[in-house]
Formats: sequence, structure tokens, C-alpha cells
Amino acid sequence: MTSTLPLNTSKVNAAHKLSLAPLQVPERLLLGPGPSNAEATVVAAMNCQPIGHLDPAYLQMMDEVQDLLRYTWQTDNELTYPVPGTGSAAMEATLANVVEPGDRVLVGVMGYFGHRLVDMAGRYGADVRTMHQSWGQVFSLDTIRAGLEEHRPAVLALVHAETSTGARQPIEGVGALCREFDCLLIIDTVTSLGGVPIFLDEWQVDLAYSCSQKGLSCPPGVSPFTMGPRAVAKMEQRQTPVANWYLDAGLLRKYWGRDRVYHHTAPVNLTFALREALRLLAEEGLENRWQRHQDTAEFFWEGLESIGLSCHVDRAYRLPTLTTVRVPDGVDAKAVARTLLLEHNIEIGGGLGELAGQVWRVGLMGANSHRDRAETLLTTLEKVLHSSL
Amino acid sequence: MTSTLPLNTSKVNAAHKLSLAPLQVPERLLLGPGPSNAEATVVAAMNCQPIGHLDPAYLQMMDEVQDLLRYTWQTDNELTYPVPGTGSAAMEATLANVVEPGDRVLVGVMGYFGHRLVDMAGRYGADVRTMHQSWGQVFSLDTIRAGLEEHRPAVLALVHAETSTGARQPIEGVGALCREFDCLLIIDTVTSLGGVPIFLDEWQVDLAYSCSQKGLSCPPGVSPFTMGPRAVAKMEQRQTPVANWYLDAGLLRKYWGRDRVYHHTAPVNLTFALREALRLLAEEGLENRWQRHQDTAEFFWEGLESIGLSCHVDRAYRLPTLTTVRVPDGVDAKAVARTLLLEHNIEIGGGLGELAGQVWRVGLMGANSHRDRAETLLTTLEKVLHSSL
Repeated sequence: MTSTLPLNTSKVNAAHKLSLAPLQVPERLLLGPGPSNAEATVVAAMNCQPIGHLDPAYLQMMDEVQDLLRYTWQTDNELTYPVPGTGSAAMEATLANVVEPGDRVLVGVMGYFGHRLVDMAGRYGADVRTMHQSWGQVFSLDTIRAGLEEHRPAVLALVHAETSTGARQPIEGVGALCREFDCLLIIDTVTSLGGVPIFLDEWQVDLAYSCSQKGLSCPPGVSPFTMGPRAVAKMEQRQTPVANWYLDAGLLRKYWGRDRVYHHTAPVNLTFALREALRLLAEEGLENRWQRHQDTAEFFWEGLESIGLSCHVDRAYRLPTLTTVRVPDGVDAKAVARTLLLEHNIEIGGGLGELAGQVWRVGLMGANSHRDRAETLLTTLEKVLHSSL
Repeated sequence: MTSTLPLNTSKVNAAHKLSLAPLQVPERLLLGPGPSNAEATVVAAMNCQPIGHLDPAYLQMMDEVQDLLRYTWQTDNELTYPVPGTGSAAMEATLANVVEPGDRVLVGVMGYFGHRLVDMAGRYGADVRTMHQSWGQVFSLDTIRAGLEEHRPAVLALVHAETSTGARQPIEGVGALCREFDCLLIIDTVTSLGGVPIFLDEWQVDLAYSCSQKGLSCPPGVSPFTMGPRAVAKMEQRQTPVANWYLDAGLLRKYWGRDRVYHHTAPVNLTFALREALRLLAEEGLENRWQRHQDTAEFFWEGLESIGLSCHVDRAYRLPTLTTVRVPDGVDAKAVARTLLLEHNIEIGGGLGELAGQVWRVGLMGANSHRDRAETLLTTLEKVLHSSL
């Protein structure tokens, strides 16, 4: 049988037709701000053919992932699911769904990701107000109360775990304040979920977001999102449509809920991986997992001291998942990170924004939150510093 | 060493702590509208640890993916990259970047995905106008000219391959019309890229989007997007910021371009898979690949006839990638699809919107565009139909 193409194909241009060898991915120890390495079974879970996004086997997996995310966040929120994008998409989903043009949004800025929230909120037409704190510090409850009193926002957004500074913003008490001032509370748990204690419902948090590739130790590409009843009520009272189709929680809940209405073709293989990552987390138990992250971090911090390095953030609110290490005077931070990566296959992060060149960012998260990983880094870092000084 | 957690963990709630067995994913032959099965080496490419999104090895891979996408689309557009989300995110990216509030957008609606474009454009404040065509038909150049004359839009959006109907909208000549009327042309190539001839630059298309899981035969989660010089010029002259941070091409080009400015943590494992899928595509060559899709489709269409079934779309503009098969009178379309899936592990799609219950949607795309797959479906479908009648 011969068939005819509807077009003349003789004019195909081969200018961009690269002829490539199969991919060789270098093996790195990922001790930067993320991605972290994944457990072997999580990576292996992706290694199978996709299935349909409405396949009964997939629908069951969706339910499992939702429930395990509720456990991980300690919430009963019905609207809890992974957004089909990376952490910034989940961040944008929180704002997009509850912010209408003109709504006042107060953002606590104590690092790079606070600025990102400001940028995003503005794009949805918010009247954005800010409170600022030095990079590496956190807000006190008194400061937050003062901010709410001054700005009377519809939404307060705080970063629980500021990935750019390594600081942990205490959230206890903030939810009650937000109820007093009748505003919603959004928190960024990108670098805390699965590694740092979070009690979303007890803290009365209305919306939260995270990512897959840090404390959950799953490859990046799907990102936890959750929305409580007060946030749903605000969304349902909107006068304007959610100004983002892809992230519209009103549409997504018809897919994640009982209706199972087609919305998008889900990133199924990443869901396979996330389900396995969450399964391992539940098997370990949150208490053990949080303790493991704390233990590993304290071991690392002592080790840093013993090689003459110090941490940027005060111990009282230092994240166990992400440590900002002060770069000693006269040391080229970028050159050290490059040597670690290219000569030792160890990735660490550099400083962002105000902290560029001043700190390295070291993540000990998920599958990498173990003393042997911390020790490998300490030994190698000491060697590289000695040879570069 | 003992360490202390910053919080009392005795209050952890185990209500949502599922105890699950490792995942068992059923093996399906995916002959619906997508996802399609992937080549074995594409799936295997995901089966490795992630690397950092600024790792030199990853940056090189990004360049390769960009160039291979240019080849696949037959374009020289610098701004050509996969969006970190599924096809609908790439669809939204085209509108979000060039539509400002009040801009007139004309959408050619000839199926479900035309309606989606209308919905999305409205969320970005567009003055949305529509031209309608029956589901399964396409627009003539004369109709398009009349639409442009009547509405004088800033943007015309057409669906090259309507996944809900199986119709292929000819694009030749439309780009020239859009230049005559000084508007941008967006086309949806979700179900055509990698399976149906596309000559983006020759057709003078300004923006296009697609997905990974159909003609490219890669798991879903990253989605090709491209934007030509006229679209970039409109974006650069915006009076308002792009109302979508995650999809903002002005930010993304700093990451995909030479600056390599951090934007989001890329879905690196999916990029590994996409790079392999595009590598295989280039190895096969576009001409051979398009011909293979056409051959397989014609074989399938003849087979349908021989078992007494017919196609919904006229042969002249029938997509080789996606066939809408008329459901015979008295047959329960959903029951047949369910039997195929649950008893034979073959997925086909049902009708969407106006065609619900009237057609099945059969995809023969990428790794599944082979006669043996078509034959498996024909034989099984005939059996199921006989036993259900």
C-alpha cells in the first residue's frame, strides 16, 4: 500500500537536525538547595510506560497521593494535590486562586522567595504591601501583628522556610492573628515539607505550597498545593474568573475530586515517583523523618565549626534542611562550588540576591539527610578550601 | 549526640497516613488521544538521579533540546523551549505572553480545544471573538479572511490538529493573511508535532505549542513552546506585565538563553526523556516519520472499513495521528472502551463535548504508529463489538 502525505516533504530543513549520542547523565551528590537525590525506588518508579490520566489505576493513585500529602502537611484539606509543574507553579497557584484585582496582599519579605511572591501577586492585580526583614532573620509575632494592623490585607503571605537564607519563620500564632484580622494566610513550605515539622491545620494556615525535589526527595516537576475552607470560600465568592486556567483550583478540583473531569494530561510518570516518595515517607513516619533531618543538620553544623566555618542563620531559627554557610573572607565562592561539582561531583548552591557571594547553600534533605553525606561534603570542602587558599 | 526538634512532635495525626504496597502500574497499549506509549530508551532515560538545573551537563542538554525542537517544528525561532508543564500550560503560555487586557483575539473554534483557547484568552482580559465550524470540519482560507476583516484582531488562534475531532486545519496561506491584517498567528500543534507535516516558518506562524506525549512519544509533563520575532516584538511593547509569572517568556528566555538566570527548578528527568525522544525523531528523520504516521493511519482506516466502521472526518483533512471512529447505532461507546481497557489493556478515548458518545478517538502516534498496533486494536475491537451486540 502506498500512501500520500498531504504535503511536499522535500523542503525539510536540516539546519537544526542534531545527530546526538544517547544521553550520559553525570552522577552527582546533590547537596544544594534542590533537587536532592531521590531514593532508588523513587527513580525506578518512573521507569515504566505511562498510563492514561483517567485510567482507574491512575485515579486510585491520585487518591493515595492526596491522602499522603494531607498526612505530610498535617491537614484535612480536601483540596490537596500536586500541581502539574514545579514549585513556583504551586506558589503561583495559591495567589492566583484567591487574589482578585485590587485585593490587598501583605508579603513578609526576608529573602529571595518573598520577592517572588511580591512579583507574582502584582501580576494578579493585587495591591501589594510588604514587611521587610534582614536576609537570615525572621519576623516576630509582634511585627506581624503590626503589619496586619497597618495594612489590613486580604491575604498575608509568609515564607516558612526561606530557601535563599536558610531561616525558619515560626508560624505558630500567625493563623490566629490572621483570623483576628480576617485575612487568609499563605505559607511557602518549599524547603520544609517532609523535613521540618509542619502542622498546617493546627497553625490555621489557609493555603500552602511546596515542591517534590527537596524534603520529599522525588525528582522535580509536580508540586504539592493545599487550600483550606476559608480560602475555598474566598475563591467561590470571586467576582472575576481565576486569571490562570492551568492553575485554576475550581477546575482542578473537578479532576482531583469525585467528578474526574478531564483538565490536563497529568505528568503520570512523575506521579508514580511522588507516590513512591510519599509512601517511603509514611513508612518512616513524620516524627522519625523530622528527627533525622534535625540530627543530620546538627552533625553538619558541628562539623562546619570544626573546619572553621560558620552558619549565617541564628541557631534558634536555622532550617535543618538548608544551611547557609558563610564564605570566609578572600575565598571565591563560585570557584569553590565549581570545583566541588566538576572535580568531586558534589553540588552545593551559591548565595542568591543579597547573599550572592557571601554564603553557600547546603541542602541535606530527604534521601541526602544522612551523616555520611554531610561528612563527605565536610571532608571535600575542607580539602578544596585548603588548596584554594 | 542528641538533637532537639523545634517542636513537639507527639501530636502528629496519623489519620491520612496510608500504609501502601509499592506501586504496580498496569501495562497498557495507549491508543487514545494521549499519552502514547514511549520508546523503551525514552522511558529508561528518566531512570537516573536528577542533576541540578544549572549543572553544565544540564545546560548543554537544554541547548540540544531547543535545537531539536526547532528542527521538529521547522523553525529558526530563538525562543523555542519546553514549558515545565503539560500541553495546556504551553497553550496558555502563547496567550499569556502576547495578550494584553483589551486586545482582540479571534479564535477559530472547530472543537473542544478551540473552546479552551477562548476560555484562556478571556482570563487574560482579551476581547475574544470566535468563528465556528462544525466539529470535524475545518476553516477555509476565505472564511478566515472574512473573520479577519470582520474582527480585525490582534491575535488569531487556530487549532492545527483538533484532538477532539481528528481534523487537520490547513495552515498554508493563513500566515500571509495575518500579515496582511497585521495580527499574530497562534497555532495548536498538540496532536500534530512529530506526526504530521509542519513548516512553521514557511507558514509564517508566530506562536505555537504542543505536548510531549503524542507525536513525540515521551511521557507527559514538559511541553514545546515557540515564539517568533513578531510575537517577541509585541511582548516587548507590552504596557502591562505578563499576567503569569511561571509562563513569562521574558523571564524564561533569560534561563533558556545565554544568561542562564535561575527561574524555576526544571523537571530535569522529563528533560532527559524529551531529549531522547527528540534524538530518536532526528535519527528517523521528519520525512520518514511523517510518512510512517500516514502509512499506519491509512492502514488503520482501511481496516476500520473492513470491519464495518467509518471515520468521522473527511479524508482530505483527516489527521493521521488521531482518528475519530463513528460509534455504530445502538453501541454503548463507554462500555466498549471500558472493556478494551480492563479486559484487553488497550486504551482508546471517548468523544469530547459535542461528539461525546458519538465517536471513539484512536491515536496512532510516535512509538505506537505501527501496523501491528493498529491490527491489534482492529482485531480486539471487532471481537468486543461482536460480543456486545
